[in-house]
Amino acid sequence: MQNHSSASLAPKPIARLLEQAGVNLNGSQPHDMQVHDDRLYSAVLTRGTLGLGEAYMEGWWSCEQLDELMHRLMAIDLDDHTKAWTKMQWLMLAVRDKVFNLQSPMRAFQVGEHHYDTGNELFEAMLDPLMIYSCGHWQHANTLADAQLHKLKMICQKLELQPGQKLLDIGCGWGGLAWYAATHCGVQVLGITVSAEQQALARIRCKGLPVAIEMMDYRELTGRFDKIVSVGMFEHVGLKNYGEYFDSVTRLLHPEGLFLLHTIGGFDKTDATDPWIDKYIFPNGKIPSPSEVMLHTEGKLVLEDWHNFGRDYDRTLMAWHNNFKAAWPQLKAAGYDERFYRMWTYYLLSCAGYFRARKGQLWQLVFSHRKRQSIYRSVRPIA
Amino acid sequence: MQNHSSASLAPKPIARLLEQAGVNLNGSQPHDMQVHDDRLYSAVLTRGTLGLGEAYMEGWWSCEQLDELMHRLMAIDLDDHTKAWTKMQWLMLAVRDKVFNLQSPMRAFQVGEHHYDTGNELFEAMLDPLMIYSCGHWQHANTLADAQLHKLKMICQKLELQPGQKLLDIGCGWGGLAWYAATHCGVQVLGITVSAEQQALARIRCKGLPVAIEMMDYRELTGRFDKIVSVGMFEHVGLKNYGEYFDSVTRLLHPEGLFLLHTIGGFDKTDATDPWIDKYIFPNGKIPSPSEVMLHTEGKLVLEDWHNFGRDYDRTLMAWHNNFKAAWPQLKAAGYDERFYRMWTYYLLSCAGYFRARKGQLWQLVFSHRKRQSIYRSVRPIA
Repeated sequence: MQNHSSASLAPKPIARLLEQAGVNLNGSQPHDMQVHDDRLYSAVLTRGTLGLGEAYMEGWWSCEQLDELMHRLMAIDLDDHTKAWTKMQWLMLAVRDKVFNLQSPMRAFQVGEHHYDTGNELFEAMLDPLMIYSCGHWQHANTLADAQLHKLKMICQKLELQPGQKLLDIGCGWGGLAWYAATHCGVQVLGITVSAEQQALARIRCKGLPVAIEMMDYRELTGRFDKIVSVGMFEHVGLKNYGEYFDSVTRLLHPEGLFLLHTIGGFDKTDATDPWIDKYIFPNGKIPSPSEVMLHTEGKLVLEDWHNFGRDYDRTLMAWHNNFKAAWPQLKAAGYDERFYRMWTYYLLSCAGYFRARKGQLWQLVFSHRKRQSIYRSVRPIA
Repeated sequence: MQNHSSASLAPKPIARLLEQAGVNLNGSQPHDMQVHDDRLYSAVLTRGTLGLGEAYMEGWWSCEQLDELMHRLMAIDLDDHTKAWTKMQWLMLAVRDKVFNLQSPMRAFQVGEHHYDTGNELFEAMLDPLMIYSCGHWQHANTLADAQLHKLKMICQKLELQPGQKLLDIGCGWGGLAWYAATHCGVQVLGITVSAEQQALARIRCKGLPVAIEMMDYRELTGRFDKIVSVGMFEHVGLKNYGEYFDSVTRLLHPEGLFLLHTIGGFDKTDATDPWIDKYIFPNGKIPSPSEVMLHTEGKLVLEDWHNFGRDYDRTLMAWHNNFKAAWPQLKAAGYDERFYRMWTYYLLSCAGYFRARKGQLWQLVFSHRKRQSIYRSVRPIA
């Protein structure tokens, strides 16, 4: 695309921020912004990071190395600055989150329909063969497939899975973890999801194994499980439901059991998720801060271990982006349009920048009951 | 001592609690309470856990296996029950903590005088050869000396110490960690303490090494350190000073640095420390809850790792108790009296029970600056 814009037209507040981030408008560095339509500026001034993402989707600007641009903008906390410009809108979002329970059981299924039923085809093309849609562990891995296998192995080790034990997987996705744990550790798995497409594919993939996949909200569950795991699902739970979430886990967990929570976490507290991500990618999501998780678990469960490997999400997202780009011709042929391409690119690369700037972390926490008798020894993978 | 007391004299609320804990008065189980003076009952009813400990010091009761008795009483949260009986006094303690800053720089030296200047002789007899007065790591150790060496090695590995780096040790005790890190990792150490006796002995023990030991409050420090460590000192900081403590660390830590915090932690929030411990052992202490630490670090530092090995404090305290018991003849000859013997026994064994009942945890947390470039990989010791 040609640049029909002049950098000198950029409003002062935007120009100042870009300078701080070491970014030039229409410059020659790979992370410079190429402006194709001046409507970008008013979009950012009035709608902040939402406007920035929407302007990208419209093709009003582009960037050779979008992940690095987003990293630089997040390192200077762009969102905090633009929030001041667009305060009214943020206030409205915050009020909405405080007044309504956006993740009530009725609404919990929305995220399933909105995001995970986008079509398995897209995720099959983008993810590793086991279709794990969460951060891999790259310390000793060179490929996405290995990073996900290493992550699954590490989870099973941390949970001390033994043959015959019952494992509950809250938010089981396409059944990759259920398949791995049943195959490699001989456990029985109940996986629950709120997406019909995930359930259908997970059932096919786990056929013949002691694995049940149910469409169910975690609050409806009964029974007792030796181990509980929840990977990349807590981000959809919402602050209002943290108490109920951990109460459910506490109730469902065997006295000698272990619970592993794998979630994105924030460097600091945030009132609402990024408005662009909220509107186009994950509606009603919420990234927890450390204290928010601790306030809802202390006095209920003992924290045994907290492992942060947030930098690995940058690498995971870049691998997904590579796969997505490579699969684009076939996805395009299947009916995805150019606007979707820009939207999905912006999603993957702005999230990579978010983790590279360490605004976002990736946590695995292990919890147990206070009355647990056996001593828990936390583990880290060795080469 | 003879029992001049009848179990049937025990007031109903006490009898009910003991029954719940599986403890008999003047029974034959090793963890049963042997009552020698009925004044025990009014002491407990009016002064709760403070009265229980003071009655033990007076010799009004005894127990063959005091650690196990205390474990059982803490597993049913004895203190919560007795708090209800003695509410006024607890209110007063809570008010005192809220109104006054008990750990202001002026008062920070009190704990040094009160506890650590009790005499190095006692600690030399009770602790391992390096005189480490904090929880050891017993996973691969069979002796106290090894448990402490393993702990020190683990700390140095977690901190990624490299020859020539500058390490700040906040609350350096008798210099055991400073000695180990300088000897084994080739780092330069600044250790700070608030106890004159600790400083004197630490200087002797670290002679000839690039180690400086200063009597100093952490708030007075200036400069930049590659790594910062603080072992068993945070328990003296006090909730009012958590903000200033972590601000100091953030200010003193190199952008690429690492900070390791080793502290006792609580299963839940507590307003005040146990009143007996507060009065006789550690005045003005405060055991943090998970959320209290996170509320004061999020948005300042990135949590890289959180390792809980609270069960090892039970074993460490039992080893200290064994050493103390074995050294009693020489300590007695040096002037310690029987009341001190009962006080110290009660301290060590009730704390062992506290950790066995998992009211108390032992945490090692690793933090870094958000802008740190290199990826941190947390480690756990392997056999």
